Amino acid sequence: MNPLVFQSDFGLEDGAVSAMYGVAYSVDPTIRMFDLTHEIEPYNIWDASYRLIQAVTYWPAGTVFVSVVDPGVGSGRRSIAVLTSQGQIIVTPDNGTLTHIKRMLGIREARSIDESRNRLKGSEESYTFHGRDVYAYTGARLAAGVITFEEVGPLIDPSTVVELATVAPTAQDDFVSGTVDVLDIRFGSLWTNISKALFDRLGIQVGETVEIMIENDTRILYHNLMKFTHSFAEVRVGEPLLYVNSLGCMAVAINQGSFARAYNIGTGNSWRITIRPSRFQL
Amino acid sequence: MNPLVFQSDFGLEDGAVSAMYGVAYSVDPTIRMFDLTHEIEPYNIWDASYRLIQAVTYWPAGTVFVSVVDPGVGSGRRSIAVLTSQGQIIVTPDNGTLTHIKRMLGIREARSIDESRNRLKGSEESYTFHGRDVYAYTGARLAAGVITFEEVGPLIDPSTVVELATVAPTAQDDFVSGTVDVLDIRFGSLWTNISKALFDRLGIQVGETVEIMIENDTRILYHNLMKFTHSFAEVRVGEPLLYVNSLGCMAVAINQGSFARAYNIGTGNSWRITIRPSRFQL
Amino acid sequence: MNPLVFQSDFGLEDGAVSAMYGVAYSVDPTIRMFDLTHEIEPYNIWDASYRLIQAVTYWPAGTVFVSVVDPGVGSGRRSIAVLTSQGQIIVTPDNGTLTHIKRMLGIREARSIDESRNRLKGSEESYTFHGRDVYAYTGARLAAGVITFEEVGPLIDPSTVVELATVAPTAQDDFVSGTVDVLDIRFGSLWTNISKALFDRLGIQVGETVEIMIENDTRILYHNLMKFTHSFAEVRVGEPLLYVNSLGCMAVAINQGSFARAYNIGTGNSWRITIRPSRFQL
Repeated sequence: MNPLVFQSDFGLEDGAVSAMYGVAYSVDPTIRMFDLTHEIEPYNIWDASYRLIQAVTYWPAGTVFVSVVDPGVGSGRRSIAVLTSQGQIIVTPDNGTLTHIKRMLGIREARSIDESRNRLKGSEESYTFHGRDVYAYTGARLAAGVITFEEVGPLIDPSTVVELATVAPTAQDDFVSGTVDVLDIRFGSLWTNISKALFDRLGIQVGETVEIMIENDTRILYHNLMKFTHSFAEVRVGEPLLYVNSLGCMAVAINQGSFARAYNIGTGNSWRITIRPSRFQL
Repeated sequence: MNPLVFQSDFGLEDGAVSAMYGVAYSVDPTIRMFDLTHEIEPYNIWDASYRLIQAVTYWPAGTVFVSVVDPGVGSGRRSIAVLTSQGQIIVTPDNGTLTHIKRMLGIREARSIDESRNRLKGSEESYTFHGRDVYAYTGARLAAGVITFEEVGPLIDPSTVVELATVAPTAQDDFVSGTVDVLDIRFGSLWTNISKALFDRLGIQVGETVEIMIENDTRILYHNLMKFTHSFAEVRVGEPLLYVNSLGCMAVAINQGSFARAYNIGTGNSWRITIRPSRFQL
Repeated sequence: MNPLVFQSDFGLEDGAVSAMYGVAYSVDPTIRMFDLTHEIEPYNIWDASYRLIQAVTYWPAGTVFVSVVDPGVGSGRRSIAVLTSQGQIIVTPDNGTLTHIKRMLGIREARSIDESRNRLKGSEESYTFHGRDVYAYTGARLAAGVITFEEVGPLIDPSTVVELATVAPTAQDDFVSGTVDVLDIRFGSLWTNISKALFDRLGIQVGETVEIMIENDTRILYHNLMKFTHSFAEVRVGEPLLYVNSLGCMAVAINQGSFARAYNIGTGNSWRITIRPSRFQL
């Protein structure tokens, strides 16, 4: 018996998540079920993709994730299950939800869900809740060992799994540049797509000062100095800092404040961040 | 061992839900516990009733639900447990929380909770948290098989279980009419009390156009045409649609928008919706 | 196998809680995991402390709590595990999170976490997520019996466990006085630090009228009469009441309204409440 972990944009306010749990429980009453999050902003495939890469690798091989952010329910979009390079399985509509998993973790094998076999009995008249009727049902049967990964459906080429557009981070002699990918919502920190490895090309040591510029398509929103530190507690309360986040990427925060709210920073490909060494030291 | 599923208006911000979990865990450490939702608007019995009908039928016979939306705690309102026509048990204050279950699913047997036997030891001085002291405790003992359904307390007549007032949907030759019962909160869709069967009397096929009017006691809030479709993806992003929701009732939405916010639609018996065939086809 | 109960200020919107769950699951796939709350306001150690006392005693001896509200992550603050007088274990940064547990329940034994042994392998480069790397990992190993409480690390003197400043409630001949400690958030009730025992010195019986004054450092925010009752339902909808909350302390509410919002009441040591017998009876 492998664990089953759910993610969706359904929220926890109504009965939708519990209906998925009930379907999975009915597949096998000994199944272990957990949540990644159900608070993905409605239809926000990008965040769904990011939250998967944030959590999947902390679960053992065999864990089955069901992710349902599905603006295209009822369209021709494929329903798929993929096996990651570490052996976790993810069941999801093929709409970009696997963007980060595909690039950062790797997909070993992908299959299209054969809905003629992998669909809750009696749900044929339902067209809007594949999360319950297809994804939770298939995920539960995989986790419980009722079906094998092969029985999900026909193999598809992993390279065809849909990816959202991203902008690769770049390094020059005296700066690195990337995008603000996502917010650490409650703490207002900016998580960038600049890896520690890329940043390290600048040769900046912990305790040294960096110059940070953040801009979007219309203007510069922040341009100032801050320290590069291990952790928040190394700067004063209210002071900004650059640090390495829990995914091994560069992040910007205000200790016990919200950087995103302070400077009205958003996320996505048009939100660019540049990091340079500074001649001044704070 | 049967699963125990909790619902309340307590929210997840404080320790109340965890106290109920702890009480149930102390009854039997092998008990399996799940949540329906704890985000019911405080005191909103109607929504509690609706969320039950949305989820209960997806759980197997024997599942025990504990629903605590209890504005009358400490009053003379009864505490009851009912057995549904499908064999699930629901433990709740008798205040209208079972309105939809009673009408749409059916109550096979109902019992009044004998609090002299079914109350957490040592909680006699507590008057405001029956969710923990009576309902979670009794639900856990039922799920764990410590007591039988008969041991809950004396039989009561199911017809006496309290129901909230509702307005029955109606069909005429050229229209069907009902109420907006609840919102699919995060997606802003309107869920009506008009069943697919009632709607089908109009003979409207998928892909055809309908005329929708929504009004409350003071005015008409919406009067326009939209397509009847299987799913959201059959209309353009931003376009309205009429569809059959996951409960088999007619629902109105905007694809990837919020119909409720767009037109300030509320819910309840005074929010009436009328569906007619249209001479025009979109 | 003992249950593992998590609390944090991480929220449920992203993957942080699920990463902790994954780490714990990887320690032992049969572990039983539950949540106290993850909706503590960011950095609000006081509320974290209060939510623990609200829930811990309803869980059996041996239950392991992991509480992560950690503004000082990366500073010199200790990481500790304590054994309560009832036998539950709490793993937490030593920053005041145990204030109420220490005073109201009692700490039998305390140990400093030896991070050289009790830290997720491979997490040495991570400086900002001790919740995952130290606390969830150590809590899971305690709950699963992989380590004993002794193996957490060296004994520390329980009297050195950090406490937040509090103001003790006081009783005079004709009044009792205390602070508004916390809100029952969704219902807007005020929970004070005045115990039922202290209040009882006034000799006021259920049904009698009291005079309540609430003030902060700058002004009086409320000064009026209300009934002391067992429960909300003993006053009219919209009427205020004084009652004994589920922790055995005096609380003030409006039946089906929000007292906190009605009178802009906050919480903390500067929010004082005084209760007197009234000559008038409502």
